[in-house]
Amino acid sequence: MGKLFIVGIGPGDGAFLTAQARLALERADILCGYTVYVDLIRPLYPDKPAYATPMLKEMDRCRWALEQAAGGRTVAMLCSGDAGVYGMAGPVLELSGKFPGAEIEVVPGVTAALSGGAVLGAPLMHDFCVISLSDLLTPWETIEKRLRCAVEGDFALCLYNPCSRRRSGHLKRACGILLESRGPETVCGWVRNIGREGQEHRILTLGELGLEQLDMFSTVFVGSSSTRQIGPWMVTPRGYGSGA
Amino acid sequence: MGKLFIVGIGPGDGAFLTAQARLALERADILCGYTVYVDLIRPLYPDKPAYATPMLKEMDRCRWALEQAAGGRTVAMLCSGDAGVYGMAGPVLELSGKFPGAEIEVVPGVTAALSGGAVLGAPLMHDFCVISLSDLLTPWETIEKRLRCAVEGDFALCLYNPCSRRRSGHLKRACGILLESRGPETVCGWVRNIGREGQEHRILTLGELGLEQLDMFSTVFVGSSSTRQIGPWMVTPRGYGSGA
Repeated sequence: MGKLFIVGIGPGDGAFLTAQARLALERADILCGYTVYVDLIRPLYPDKPAYATPMLKEMDRCRWALEQAAGGRTVAMLCSGDAGVYGMAGPVLELSGKFPGAEIEVVPGVTAALSGGAVLGAPLMHDFCVISLSDLLTPWETIEKRLRCAVEGDFALCLYNPCSRRRSGHLKRACGILLESRGPETVCGWVRNIGREGQEHRILTLGELGLEQLDMFSTVFVGSSSTRQIGPWMVTPRGYGSGA
Repeated sequence: MGKLFIVGIGPGDGAFLTAQARLALERADILCGYTVYVDLIRPLYPDKPAYATPMLKEMDRCRWALEQAAGGRTVAMLCSGDAGVYGMAGPVLELSGKFPGAEIEVVPGVTAALSGGAVLGAPLMHDFCVISLSDLLTPWETIEKRLRCAVEGDFALCLYNPCSRRRSGHLKRACGILLESRGPETVCGWVRNIGREGQEHRILTLGELGLEQLDMFSTVFVGSSSTRQIGPWMVTPRGYGSGA
């Protein structure tokens, strides 16, 4: 019987792979995924067959992988970060009922909220929200409403997909909404190319954030009212009362 | 010069360690952390010295680790799940200004929202909130407010620390608040002992969730209005329009 592993590979190359993910990749007869992710993992398994497809062909890739698994092959579908957080586990499982012969296992990975958070320090130490600013699959009104609710609840925020060529103004618009209720001095940060060549980051204020020129390889963090900059770090205290 | 690695080890034993985390553990002269986490990792490094302390001694442990690193040793402080999400990165970084000789690196790991999510399927495929129900360090009123804002924004929810001996009624109270605005048929799930012996999980409705007898080793997932059960899986669709 075949099996489909949906594998979160973490943000970059093999450094962020868990032992569980490595085991799944080793067991697979074939790797599949977006070309960039296949290329990141390729050096670990130079001889393993791979089926790489360009972006925006997600549903075709899911169907192909389920067909292969139903047909008896073991397939590892690669997701950047985690398999579940804006990953491929959702679309695969939505289709899975049509492929009853395909056994499926979701293998979690380190999503950008965690890997980017570690670069900045500990911005998500307390309750937080993760919101994607991409309106490809979500109406912008829903995104706006979620931003407002997140501020209202004084959550720390992690924003995925802050910008792309087609969405250059989204981060600025999001900052405008956050600034309606949160002060311009709120501690924020961003990380670019996490775990890859050219990784960079910056800690800045909410007032400054909207002016940044970021791209689709950036992850943005917005502090809660208690988030502070401590030396080079962005930290949301949990309330241990360290007196630091 | 010494160095302090704050390492997220994932939910269980070595299976969830990333390559980066393994490297940090290998470089360390000494491991430190809550006894249970040291015991989980111990089989990988049977001969490495370890400084294990009981729970609720967090600040002592942080100070000790920073002193060691400032004094020239390389220390790995173990955190369950991620180093940042309700982990030790926050308290360590809050104290770090007092130990300028200690170099610090935060090493991310797979937090229970991701590892538990993978067991259930893909409950956090779209925008989500993570909230701890522990009122040890947070006033219950803040927790209630965040639950209300999360429902208002139609986020999927992951709840940490749903219960403990001292907080047996918190999950039930939380469900009561969520039920003010979200229907009792909302798809929910929980996972217990993720990645450890005795792992178990259940998918159920929000109406049923408040009656469950869970413990501090459980992580709870509450769906958004679009979350569905698909076969054995809990899935929050992202909107790829799969037509499944």
